[in-house]
Amino acid sequence: MTRTRTASARRRSACAIACTLDLVGDKWSLLVIRDLLHGKRTFKELADSPERIPTNILADRLKRLEEAGVIVRAPYRERPVRHAYSLSEKGTAFRDVLGAFIRWGKAHIAGTVTLHDPAPDMTPAAWPIVPVRTGRRRRGLPRPPTD
Amino acid sequence: MTRTRTASARRRSACAIACTLDLVGDKWSLLVIRDLLHGKRTFKELADSPERIPTNILADRLKRLEEAGVIVRAPYRERPVRHAYSLSEKGTAFRDVLGAFIRWGKAHIAGTVTLHDPAPDMTPAAWPIVPVRTGRRRRGLPRPPTD
Repeated sequence: MTRTRTASARRRSACAIACTLDLVGDKWSLLVIRDLLHGKRTFKELADSPERIPTNILADRLKRLEEAGVIVRAPYRERPVRHAYSLSEKGTAFRDVLGAFIRWGKAHIAGTVTLHDPAPDMTPAAWPIVPVRTGRRRRGLPRPPTD
Repeated sequence: MTRTRTASARRRSACAIACTLDLVGDKWSLLVIRDLLHGKRTFKELADSPERIPTNILADRLKRLEEAGVIVRAPYRERPVRHAYSLSEKGTAFRDVLGAFIRWGKAHIAGTVTLHDPAPDMTPAAWPIVPVRTGRRRRGLPRPPTD
């Protein structure tokens, strides 16, 4: 009850769109959900996606989505403990939202693909214009804005 | 060509979801599009929505969405000049994305509504827990994070 009340108190309005954006209205959350839908499970697998999510942002988004019941975290190894992430039913239901994003993007942004499109090579080196990144972004280097 | 190249260079990947999030992956852009779909036209009308978007963020989002061809700006009065905003065909196509957000929100966040639901009173004073705001947020007061 306290939790529900706290969550409600943070709402900007009762609008279903606004409340959903309070949860996933950023550049990264829906990409994490996309990757979990595609079968990724570990922190490292999620961090290794083409968009190169900064690891501090990934850790924050995983925590927030777990608290919201969108993803489930379970240990798969001890010493050192490692966790695997998966989508709850609530998280899997974002498939519909992701489908709408894919349709809009493919119709209106030239050169975009889905991860399951067979034709284009999705490895970073194959993108025609995006600078190739050969490794994890290092601490201290400038990062793009995340708002 | 330069513009396309610049826009492409900012892409995190060729993924249609990621590229769409590069444009509307924040807490506010889709709410502006929602309001334009519902017939709002002026800066003041958009700023007066229940979520009380800070006016500096509203100005920024209108500029970005206009540059991306999602909205169209046209003067409707001179001295002082005033502009009206509307959605392009590309912008109207976000209806599908908003519909997916509404379905997810209403199914998974208790107490959420759409602006067209007849039952609940959508005026701020009618929301059960959200603190009532009686006016525009003033400069200098703390704002919620916008990431």
